[in-house]
Amino acid sequence: MEVLIEERQKSEFEVRSLKVLFWGGEESFEMVSRMATLAASDPVFKSDDRVTLSRGELIKSGLKKAAHVRKLVLDLSLSDREAYMLRIFVDERSYADLHWNMFVPALEGQATKEQQDYWLPLARSMKIIGCYAQTELGHGSNVRGIETTATFNAANDEFILETPTITSTKWWPGGLGKVATHALIQARLLVGKEDYGTHAFIVQLRDLENHKLLAGVKVGDIGTKYGNNTVDNGYLHLESVCIPRMNMLMRMAEVTKEGKYKKSDVPRQILYGAMVTAREIIISEAAINLSRAVTIAVRYSAVRRQFSGSGSEGMPEEQVLNYVTQQQRLFPLLAAVYAYQFSAQWLRWLYEDVQERIKKNDFSTLPEVHSCTAGLKALTTSVTAAGIEECRKLCGGHGYLCSSGIPELYAAYLPSCTYEGENIILFREVGRILLRTFLDSHKGKNSSGTTAYISRLKSFNVQNCGVVQGSDFFNEMILLRAFEMRSLELIRGCARKVLQSSDFQAGLDEYAVDIVEMAQAHCQLIVISKFLDKLQGEIPGPGVREQLQTLYYLYALSLIKEHIGDFLSSGYLTRTQASLVTKQLLVLYAKIRPNVVALVDAFNHTDHFLGSTLGSYDGDAYNRLYKGAWRNNPLNDTVVTDGYSEYIRPILTGQLGVSRL
Amino acid sequence: MEVLIEERQKSEFEVRSLKVLFWGGEESFEMVSRMATLAASDPVFKSDDRVTLSRGELIKSGLKKAAHVRKLVLDLSLSDREAYMLRIFVDERSYADLHWNMFVPALEGQATKEQQDYWLPLARSMKIIGCYAQTELGHGSNVRGIETTATFNAANDEFILETPTITSTKWWPGGLGKVATHALIQARLLVGKEDYGTHAFIVQLRDLENHKLLAGVKVGDIGTKYGNNTVDNGYLHLESVCIPRMNMLMRMAEVTKEGKYKKSDVPRQILYGAMVTAREIIISEAAINLSRAVTIAVRYSAVRRQFSGSGSEGMPEEQVLNYVTQQQRLFPLLAAVYAYQFSAQWLRWLYEDVQERIKKNDFSTLPEVHSCTAGLKALTTSVTAAGIEECRKLCGGHGYLCSSGIPELYAAYLPSCTYEGENIILFREVGRILLRTFLDSHKGKNSSGTTAYISRLKSFNVQNCGVVQGSDFFNEMILLRAFEMRSLELIRGCARKVLQSSDFQAGLDEYAVDIVEMAQAHCQLIVISKFLDKLQGEIPGPGVREQLQTLYYLYALSLIKEHIGDFLSSGYLTRTQASLVTKQLLVLYAKIRPNVVALVDAFNHTDHFLGSTLGSYDGDAYNRLYKGAWRNNPLNDTVVTDGYSEYIRPILTGQLGVSRL
Repeated sequence: MEVLIEERQKSEFEVRSLKVLFWGGEESFEMVSRMATLAASDPVFKSDDRVTLSRGELIKSGLKKAAHVRKLVLDLSLSDREAYMLRIFVDERSYADLHWNMFVPALEGQATKEQQDYWLPLARSMKIIGCYAQTELGHGSNVRGIETTATFNAANDEFILETPTITSTKWWPGGLGKVATHALIQARLLVGKEDYGTHAFIVQLRDLENHKLLAGVKVGDIGTKYGNNTVDNGYLHLESVCIPRMNMLMRMAEVTKEGKYKKSDVPRQILYGAMVTAREIIISEAAINLSRAVTIAVRYSAVRRQFSGSGSEGMPEEQVLNYVTQQQRLFPLLAAVYAYQFSAQWLRWLYEDVQERIKKNDFSTLPEVHSCTAGLKALTTSVTAAGIEECRKLCGGHGYLCSSGIPELYAAYLPSCTYEGENIILFREVGRILLRTFLDSHKGKNSSGTTAYISRLKSFNVQNCGVVQGSDFFNEMILLRAFEMRSLELIRGCARKVLQSSDFQAGLDEYAVDIVEMAQAHCQLIVISKFLDKLQGEIPGPGVREQLQTLYYLYALSLIKEHIGDFLSSGYLTRTQASLVTKQLLVLYAKIRPNVVALVDAFNHTDHFLGSTLGSYDGDAYNRLYKGAWRNNPLNDTVVTDGYSEYIRPILTGQLGVSRL
Repeated sequence: MEVLIEERQKSEFEVRSLKVLFWGGEESFEMVSRMATLAASDPVFKSDDRVTLSRGELIKSGLKKAAHVRKLVLDLSLSDREAYMLRIFVDERSYADLHWNMFVPALEGQATKEQQDYWLPLARSMKIIGCYAQTELGHGSNVRGIETTATFNAANDEFILETPTITSTKWWPGGLGKVATHALIQARLLVGKEDYGTHAFIVQLRDLENHKLLAGVKVGDIGTKYGNNTVDNGYLHLESVCIPRMNMLMRMAEVTKEGKYKKSDVPRQILYGAMVTAREIIISEAAINLSRAVTIAVRYSAVRRQFSGSGSEGMPEEQVLNYVTQQQRLFPLLAAVYAYQFSAQWLRWLYEDVQERIKKNDFSTLPEVHSCTAGLKALTTSVTAAGIEECRKLCGGHGYLCSSGIPELYAAYLPSCTYEGENIILFREVGRILLRTFLDSHKGKNSSGTTAYISRLKSFNVQNCGVVQGSDFFNEMILLRAFEMRSLELIRGCARKVLQSSDFQAGLDEYAVDIVEMAQAHCQLIVISKFLDKLQGEIPGPGVREQLQTLYYLYALSLIKEHIGDFLSSGYLTRTQASLVTKQLLVLYAKIRPNVVALVDAFNHTDHFLGSTLGSYDGDAYNRLYKGAWRNNPLNDTVVTDGYSEYIRPILTGQLGVSRL
């Protein structure tokens, strides 16, 4: 119990200042903190019984919490941002996340002004509850493969929606199964003999008075999932369901009364508006989710002791946190939390900037936003999912108990790697854009934004980094340049291979593996450079800058070690220089070690949000673990177990032969 | 539905011959096949409702299946090996696994002849049911840290057992919570003022007539876990529990009536006998578990289509299995299954050999067995756990549905990385042995067995592999040598660093990260070399050898690509040679592609054992998925969900303010 107090006394910086920086400024931190406390202090939001609930109970519990959030939003007049953070801290996913994070933004992006005037007030006041129905049983990432159809019927000025095959059944949309009254449905638009590809349609599913299904609509729940079983991921059949023509979202293209199809001049990227919003949210949530797991693992590693410190018996065992094998796995994840949070802050700024521009019909930065959100979504969710699992392992066996909080966190987090763009497909897309940018830059078209380095360095030969001794690696620019050179070399290599193929697309397919690695490298570079931007800005608070600088070095050097082959291959590092990296990492681990508990305190997580017997603020892990065995555990209600007389006693007494099983 | 039939027609080898090879010979295959069918055809062993059961129901279901297995074992007079395989295929972990895989072997290894004569007939007939209680709430891997005490009381010729603190509570042992009548307890032996460290004691926990707890014994279940919730992992308090002196297992050391402590001359490694058995089992199960996930992912990747093959609309979409990004992630796991299975076969031979030798008091090969089982356990379980999760991702979103079978497989498999030796700690141990072997070999003591290469190559300078064109990599010896050189270079580098430290142990601690990587490299080499041994033996059946050779190349080259930095650093590969590896991998993917469905068929898994809507033999994935939504899903019993009137309607009608939540 004393150990975390001692750890906190060792730290060399002012924690509150870092909290403020982490949460994006004083005002934002104050709001976030208020919402976290609100979630933690309300008994309705208790969640420690969740792992023992049945599926039916889970859904009901999710409904109850969602309703209570809604009530608080209304009672306390919370802003959209406050409501969003409250939902994050309540930490029980439900239809409301999909309504607010997908349905509403899709209306904002794809509906015309008139349509918005009609639908948005209904959606924003939750007089209707919407879901976003794109994925089908047989069709995920490839929107073109969608089979659901919307056929224009001029006679009644309507569309007739149909899911003609089993594989066209809408499958997965959250909120669809048991709650949503309306769905935004992606369907192929058929007018006359023409197939215009997928477009979005608003379809009412349920009666607003009694929640019964409307004619031709069949929906239900798709079954138990790995995690997130508080959400009613649903299936949907449509059999000749008619909707008014005006229920097609027409910002991108319209169908007139006469059945004429007209594309608008709004760029196609707008269509991905809802997806970009969703991805932007996913990236900022990656940092939050990883920070939860890292907090638990760091605190418990301070509490947990193993093996004798001095090698002699009788001495107290060593804190697990002191082992380099623990530090090597844990500290880079801590650094990644900060790195991703700063990338997310930059991305939010970029996103708001592009929204402003779009209002002025300036679409010039859309490709950059599209590519960065796709790439960073893929990078941060992959690392976060694997990182949460790594944190579980770093808690030893006890991480396997649900009371540790990590198994549920992991299972709930995983879908982020798949939904809103499967990560490998996103990396391939980013890779395609990078190759185009590289080839364009050779034709004299300068690249800008996060790809500016391609034009800047394209005619450089890779020069060696010039590191002589290990400490030379502690140099912001040498590290940044290492990632630029590596990324550029990978792009160059891919371009060479792809250009040798019969055509560009065939090359992209054949060398997809290399292209994914190249895109990953580029995305790591973006994160590095945004971290560096942060370091070069104002950083208030005693000692805070030093901590961030150490984390920056650690983040960069850990990646260099992990991908050492790339850096050697690029020629930026020699084998001798590479051999110095490990030693420098040990120096960084030692710098972080006394500060590490304070560095996770700076995430400002409540015990409620962590939901972990191992990771609580007071460090009282063993007593909490112990008590956890009795929490909602029916097995401990009786000494002799249910099933003893049928299934155990006959074995022990040798009477199994005559017993009936 | 047709697609898997077509895939099978494309294959270029005789599947049955590979089945026989995979399962270790005709007789073994026939037995395995019989047990798999027995499990699949008995309705008691149905498992597709497992994900929807509550914890209490799960335990009872586990008890029922375990009893039914026992009944079949008796009714059909199954051998130990048959019974073991039946339990594997029933695929519902229970106390019986711990009884047979831990408790019985511990008695065999640690009890004296007389003790065995008393305890083994009771245990083998299940008149008693045992568990293995070592881990404590505060003490896992470090046996020395154990706090439970057994104090000798000469007056009554007994030991008094005590768990004096909360952290000394026994915690985790499977079977302990609700079933075991006896426990093998690791406790510190105290005689007079002397503390002799941990020894094993048999303690009866429950009355054999009525299953009530004996005086001073408190046991119960530790709560819900990530997976394996059919098992009653337990806690145990002991308060002045007296047991006869002869309940101490005395093969290693005895305490006489007079309180004299005498060590026997049996080597200490025997103490780890039960653990070596358990690890050997874990390694062979790694291959089986990974093979299940790979089968599901391969079959579903053949069924699932995404994006247009030719790029043009209207064409059927491409089989996901045709994408190199899918092949690159999936095929090396397929190769790993075969590689691990062959390592396990070798290890079983080695283990049986050592058991024979021990009977003749020849302990010379014990260190090799100990080190190989430790290292291969760590390697194979780490890769298998990560590989199962990778297979889940390779199934896209649907892998997240429990009906895919993979989430449960993963959650159930994970503890293998932690129990019977946490993997990082095992690698450190193997690393320590390797460094000792290396240093000894420089003092003229030749290394043998799996470390023979250290002496053989120690004075070689690394020579380049001599590869000129990519196809030169398709050479068994070049690949084997690559791994030997890499491993040796890593050992050399670690030895250099460690020797510079103040003392050997301090060096091991400081460079633990490098040592773990070095040990991993050595274990990969073992697997490579045992795969090669297999290739060099007899391989019956048309086309089978060619398949295994391709898989060997793939296994080796994938690892070279993954750890390219090591191979570049060792000088065995130049940057130019390294750049050829990727292209050769593409060649191998193309060779495997037409055979891949047949290569997973060769694992011989029943649909029952796979337990997957996605991976069934007939490939009817979408219909099974679809029907899966209704299986034990109470949410689909009503159209309007439970909770609608309290939690949804008030939101839609704007009456939340007046509702009571």
